Amino acid sequence: MIAKKMKDLVLNGSTIRAMFEEGKKMAEQYGKENVYDFSLGNPNTPPPESVKKAALAILQEEEPLRLHGYMSNAGYEDVRDRLAESLNARHQMQYTRDNLILTVGAAGALNVALKTILEPEDEVVLLAPFFGEYIHYVQNFQGVPVVIPPDIPDFSINFEALEAKLSQKTKALIVNTPNNPTGVIYSEDDIRRLAELLRNKQKEYGHAIYLISDEPYREIVFGGQTVPYLPKFYENTFVGYSYSKSLSLPGERIGYLVIHHEMEDAEETMQAASVANRILGFVNAPSLMQRVIGVCAEEVSDMTVYQENKEILYRELTAMGFEMIEPQGAFYMFPKSPIPDEKAFCQAAKRYRILLVPGSTFACPGYFRLAFCVSKETVLNSLEGFRQLAKEFGLGGQDVPKAGL
Amino acid sequence: MIAKKMKDLVLNGSTIRAMFEEGKKMAEQYGKENVYDFSLGNPNTPPPESVKKAALAILQEEEPLRLHGYMSNAGYEDVRDRLAESLNARHQMQYTRDNLILTVGAAGALNVALKTILEPEDEVVLLAPFFGEYIHYVQNFQGVPVVIPPDIPDFSINFEALEAKLSQKTKALIVNTPNNPTGVIYSEDDIRRLAELLRNKQKEYGHAIYLISDEPYREIVFGGQTVPYLPKFYENTFVGYSYSKSLSLPGERIGYLVIHHEMEDAEETMQAASVANRILGFVNAPSLMQRVIGVCAEEVSDMTVYQENKEILYRELTAMGFEMIEPQGAFYMFPKSPIPDEKAFCQAAKRYRILLVPGSTFACPGYFRLAFCVSKETVLNSLEGFRQLAKEFGLGGQDVPKAGL
Repeated sequence: MIAKKMKDLVLNGSTIRAMFEEGKKMAEQYGKENVYDFSLGNPNTPPPESVKKAALAILQEEEPLRLHGYMSNAGYEDVRDRLAESLNARHQMQYTRDNLILTVGAAGALNVALKTILEPEDEVVLLAPFFGEYIHYVQNFQGVPVVIPPDIPDFSINFEALEAKLSQKTKALIVNTPNNPTGVIYSEDDIRRLAELLRNKQKEYGHAIYLISDEPYREIVFGGQTVPYLPKFYENTFVGYSYSKSLSLPGERIGYLVIHHEMEDAEETMQAASVANRILGFVNAPSLMQRVIGVCAEEVSDMTVYQENKEILYRELTAMGFEMIEPQGAFYMFPKSPIPDEKAFCQAAKRYRILLVPGSTFACPGYFRLAFCVSKETVLNSLEGFRQLAKEFGLGGQDVPKAGL
Repeated sequence: MIAKKMKDLVLNGSTIRAMFEEGKKMAEQYGKENVYDFSLGNPNTPPPESVKKAALAILQEEEPLRLHGYMSNAGYEDVRDRLAESLNARHQMQYTRDNLILTVGAAGALNVALKTILEPEDEVVLLAPFFGEYIHYVQNFQGVPVVIPPDIPDFSINFEALEAKLSQKTKALIVNTPNNPTGVIYSEDDIRRLAELLRNKQKEYGHAIYLISDEPYREIVFGGQTVPYLPKFYENTFVGYSYSKSLSLPGERIGYLVIHHEMEDAEETMQAASVANRILGFVNAPSLMQRVIGVCAEEVSDMTVYQENKEILYRELTAMGFEMIEPQGAFYMFPKSPIPDEKAFCQAAKRYRILLVPGSTFACPGYFRLAFCVSKETVLNSLEGFRQLAKEFGLGGQDVPKAGL
């Protein structure tokens, strides 16, 4: 007699996680090298050597009771000082430790922010396509997700639909740039326009509307693009950051929440968010990893493999006739499915041992997501399967010679 | 404009956490050695050497992408196998990996269990005195906490009050033995009686009533006591376990949730709990610590310091005239306040630089909690303050000579 909602979730499952489990099984059956698993955002580039070095040194040198003990729910003060400095230097902000809470990844940070601000029935705006977990995060606090349809084919912000859906009940808007699943970076012009829109609506409705910026992909950017830093454009901004991708540590659950220093009631919000971190059962971010981040705040994993994969896949798949927008960041691409029922297409892809995630998972049916955080070899070996898929579905691509990849 | 509930929480704060912050400030002001901070359950005995050894070896030897990467939301399969074996050997159970989810501490485990089973308005029974965070955990899922008044002076289970408060809406009961804040271990007779009562009520109401056993203190037991293992007595049992105290790793947030193999719908419950672990934002327990636990599952920290502290404090404080039941486990004692307003008493204790937590925090006013997970030196040096406190409040204790402690 589990909760009804949970029963439904078990039945429907997470498509992505189900793929992950299926991928593991297929790997056992066919051999890992013969399965082209593009389903999960599990980094494929190792953490920088400095992470291992820092972890070893900290374990060797620090007093274990302090290292593994409780600290303030917001995290170690010196680590938060360090991160504030780093962010201030990078983005010209004026953060202090009191604008930062170390969290159990960005998922933890987003849940803490939502717990802090949401009253039951408050609306939270999501811009499709988006990471499907946002729906759960909002519902965890009896919020109501309001989905803005995608801006096709650019996948930037659909302002017309957005304006129409903002209401007196709008409490927050979640933005994810570089975007999962499209790889799009929202332009500075769009961010400015969004900030102005929200400011006007705040005045009109007489209450704060929060921007929640989910930033796990900030450091994964192609071709010298820059990612506008949302707090520079809008005061009532939370940032959920994660080291899952930037330092390739997704299993360690380490990230932070920024509470903008110019946010309305910033001090009270910080206190409330610390309480939220505790009462949601996180209590605090894992302590050893907090200290590792304190040392490695300026490091990033080597992202060149993602860039290479992106280039090969974009070039080859578009040549085969797949339509898509070229990813600017993150490690995802989001091509149009050759048939409207993209779930059927993803099913068909499995016959070529290619694992893809249907766009409906991201509130954007008719497309599919391909996570290219895999080895270059996997990418190259998958191409023949994609070629056959394209043929099977009648795509009019040119016949690309295999050589010269 | 944060949520109203969070505003209230910021105003009222967590008494325990406020003490923790105050203790840090007092330590800066008077010197750490002159502050007798009995407020927080932060272990004082270091992790066993094997923890450090295991962490270093794992970091040196394991492939970093695997070590720090995503795994199944329930945790590494081999670690869950290992824990299942260990629990089966210890408690004669028939667990497999599919009865275990690695969690972000026991707080994470309890939240996962409650998310899995609670419908809005479901009642969750709490036996006073109890860890105050349970109220929040239940309310996180729109459950209604139903508080059973304490069984004074024994602090065992108040069956009369419990029977009276069980209802058609009762979905679960949280049990914590050895108990925070009393140090009491519920007897096997009481557990049997509780199991029978719940079984009868399940029949009467026609639905499952879950027992949620919060077990962070299982390994901290004095004088050869044994702690009955609740799943042996009742099928619909979840166990939330934590390595925070047994391995002195509270900051690392590592523990597990047991789903009894004979629980109603055990398989579906396991799947739902894995989903809950993900959508609550935990995603999975921190990966490096999972692997450490896999190696150190049979280890415990040296608990002799707690036993020594308990003995000194129990002997001296009772001699001073404080009334209390002798702790059988955990590292807390819960004496009666010399005045009914125990908050005023705890305030007065601060003048002697003694930090205590008022019993109202545990739904049991008129008592105070003393966490003796501190150094023996702190205990000894605090005694003079306690003696003066006892005098100030007119306790009729004998004058204990200082020598011979």
